[in-house]
Amino acid sequence: MKKNLISINDLERSDIESFLSTASEVEKLTKRKASDILPGCILSTLFLEPSTRTRLSFEAAMQRLGGTTINLASEVSSVQKGENITDTGKVVAGYTDICVVRSPYEGTARMLTEKTKVPIINGGDGANQHPTQTLLDLFTIKKEFGSIDGLKIGMMGDLKYGRTVHSLAEALDNYSVEIRLISPDETKMPEHIVKEVGVEEETNKMKIKDLDVLYTTRIQKERFPDKQEYERVKDVFVLDEERVKEMKKDAILMHPLPRIDEIKPEGDKLPQARYFEQAKNGVPARMGIILELLGVEVNV
Amino acid sequence: MKKNLISINDLERSDIESFLSTASEVEKLTKRKASDILPGCILSTLFLEPSTRTRLSFEAAMQRLGGTTINLASEVSSVQKGENITDTGKVVAGYTDICVVRSPYEGTARMLTEKTKVPIINGGDGANQHPTQTLLDLFTIKKEFGSIDGLKIGMMGDLKYGRTVHSLAEALDNYSVEIRLISPDETKMPEHIVKEVGVEEETNKMKIKDLDVLYTTRIQKERFPDKQEYERVKDVFVLDEERVKEMKKDAILMHPLPRIDEIKPEGDKLPQARYFEQAKNGVPARMGIILELLGVEVNV
Amino acid sequence: MKKNLISINDLERSDIESFLSTASEVEKLTKRKASDILPGCILSTLFLEPSTRTRLSFEAAMQRLGGTTINLASEVSSVQKGENITDTGKVVAGYTDICVVRSPYEGTARMLTEKTKVPIINGGDGANQHPTQTLLDLFTIKKEFGSIDGLKIGMMGDLKYGRTVHSLAEALDNYSVEIRLISPDETKMPEHIVKEVGVEEETNKMKIKDLDVLYTTRIQKERFPDKQEYERVKDVFVLDEERVKEMKKDAILMHPLPRIDEIKPEGDKLPQARYFEQAKNGVPARMGIILELLGVEVNV
Repeated sequence: MKKNLISINDLERSDIESFLSTASEVEKLTKRKASDILPGCILSTLFLEPSTRTRLSFEAAMQRLGGTTINLASEVSSVQKGENITDTGKVVAGYTDICVVRSPYEGTARMLTEKTKVPIINGGDGANQHPTQTLLDLFTIKKEFGSIDGLKIGMMGDLKYGRTVHSLAEALDNYSVEIRLISPDETKMPEHIVKEVGVEEETNKMKIKDLDVLYTTRIQKERFPDKQEYERVKDVFVLDEERVKEMKKDAILMHPLPRIDEIKPEGDKLPQARYFEQAKNGVPARMGIILELLGVEVNV
Repeated sequence: MKKNLISINDLERSDIESFLSTASEVEKLTKRKASDILPGCILSTLFLEPSTRTRLSFEAAMQRLGGTTINLASEVSSVQKGENITDTGKVVAGYTDICVVRSPYEGTARMLTEKTKVPIINGGDGANQHPTQTLLDLFTIKKEFGSIDGLKIGMMGDLKYGRTVHSLAEALDNYSVEIRLISPDETKMPEHIVKEVGVEEETNKMKIKDLDVLYTTRIQKERFPDKQEYERVKDVFVLDEERVKEMKKDAILMHPLPRIDEIKPEGDKLPQARYFEQAKNGVPARMGIILELLGVEVNV
Repeated sequence: MKKNLISINDLERSDIESFLSTASEVEKLTKRKASDILPGCILSTLFLEPSTRTRLSFEAAMQRLGGTTINLASEVSSVQKGENITDTGKVVAGYTDICVVRSPYEGTARMLTEKTKVPIINGGDGANQHPTQTLLDLFTIKKEFGSIDGLKIGMMGDLKYGRTVHSLAEALDNYSVEIRLISPDETKMPEHIVKEVGVEEETNKMKIKDLDVLYTTRIQKERFPDKQEYERVKDVFVLDEERVKEMKKDAILMHPLPRIDEIKPEGDKLPQARYFEQAKNGVPARMGIILELLGVEVNV
């Protein structure tokens, strides 16, 4: 098994499947039983920038397994005193059994793997990678449909800068799926990912009726030099109740959250809305990640 | 049983008694035994403004029960990114089994009950309610006297703006007690509460000799347009050693803390002083609250 | 046994040995077994100034023992509201079984021992004391050499202002060791400690070849009125690969961390480098401290 989880590109389909199946196994356990798996084990969370969901769902995941957590946040005193971040990371990880690193700088997590023997999880490093988000996205899809192969999956919104959709597209390349990219011309998926991944269709129309999965992301104002252009484009890709109702009844609508207004709250109660379940799946998905990296098997 | 704890006014006497008796039962257990009640259970604390005592005593309460805690503090990144606070609350609560919400805005906790199935505890919402403080106050009184009925209870200080004394008065309306309100004219208890609750006496003199319980609160400078008036009034209601000694030997002196100078440190060692025990009672009282809302029975 | 750990000077050799041997015993246990020692016990960490390593290693220590932790950080609301810090400390410690206090002010920890029955650990109080650092330093030396008596121990760098080396020197006075003080004339060890402790040699040359232990600390720029003098002096006491290689093969190089550039990263892989192990030893050393103060025996 892999010892660290740094990039979704380091994983083969069999690795991904291991994570997903361990997550699925552990989710079936009662709380009391799960909490007997990792007593005395500690997860350190080293967050050089804040990330509410990633930190809290990792904490919850470790705690559900009977372990505990310690957190070093960005206001880190030693770091401010000029200490090298790998020194800090090495020391903090060394207090514990496994460590999640979040950083605004690309490569921080991988650099730390060379300094410590403790398994390192990349909790997001700048614009680069956020592999645990991708695994929870896949976990959500698999949980809903039983299998990922054979699905029609649309990604919509800011496909140019969205780390989430880049990683998801790369991960889906391990599966037999049809991918449709839906975005304004200004925020298209980078060419090199489109080529690498094998995309069925790119469009700037909201073509969503036949999809099994629609994965949306926020279009950020900052990306548009022309603010009027932004206003025009933004409204084209807003999902209100009417548009969600156009989707297949058994399709699912995903979003990494937070959403601002690209999905209207009125849509939350529609049968397709699955973004809150998706967020909640962060906990079992990350339980699976922790167990796999520690090499601990779940006995149901 | 109630599923959420939002306002003391939602509770009937029997509800209050359930909370108090569960707290009392769980307090009798050994640490090891108590810690076997909720293994694998998680409490989320969602604090949109800081509140040291409330957060820490809830964390301690959940941990004494063998559970764990995750905390989202006010510097919340997603909230700062413009995310709707109910979205954040829904996600964070969803990682856990029960959630405490503290907010500077009235109604936040109740709003969240409509968005999530996880039991919600109001840890204070602006000037509105702070029901867990009231339950720990009642727990303290009951623990000292065995029963609340029949007591003479004085409330003193800032009765106009003090959320704590408003809720306590409303809760005591469920009991047969004699209530005396003691305050400068500038900070009298609001008329509607006085009427609702059935008060025996209102006075601006420090009449405390015959009381069983004296509950004091700080008079805040900001409330007085005329600062000289504040200085005059403030000193009238300071409890120094001499004044506390005037109280009955078996009376108790309570204060929600922090105190500044309305109770002199010299009074701490007097037999009536009970505010530090009161603070400490926050832990068993909140253990009782958590257990009641989760519907878990204590077997002694 | 002592109930509090406030100053290394409060301890006799037998006290120190108790801490070290409990730490050593508990380190031998499996994680699962250790985590069964203190279920339901809570450590409060009251940090009036940040200290990453001290806080996190105490949290990890308590968690390894099956206990949990609550943290009150310097942004303490009640403290900001003007509350007396001993009131806050008394309340927070009272929620828990044992409390670590870190303060920028000398005497805070000792003051708190007079206000609460909960065992208090001094996690560093200004320029005064940091006894748990000293115990982990001794634990590291003893772990490496089996015994402390008979060793040649050098302390190098800022011996004038370094709280760590002051306490270590005082603690070593309980043992039969040879102490060599190595520093620029500007940062010599204070005369009263030199006299009290019994130092074999003071030098401003880097004489390190025959030492068993070299304990280095950072020389801080702020200490030098003449910055050119600082630059000259600083480089004299930098440990690069070449200099570390001059040391005995079985000697150890220690540093309380964080280091800036007084030890070059290239030295990390040399056999003498032991500062990361030293940091890691903070966890078992602090497990020993917690157990001794709570009077809990370890049964291996």
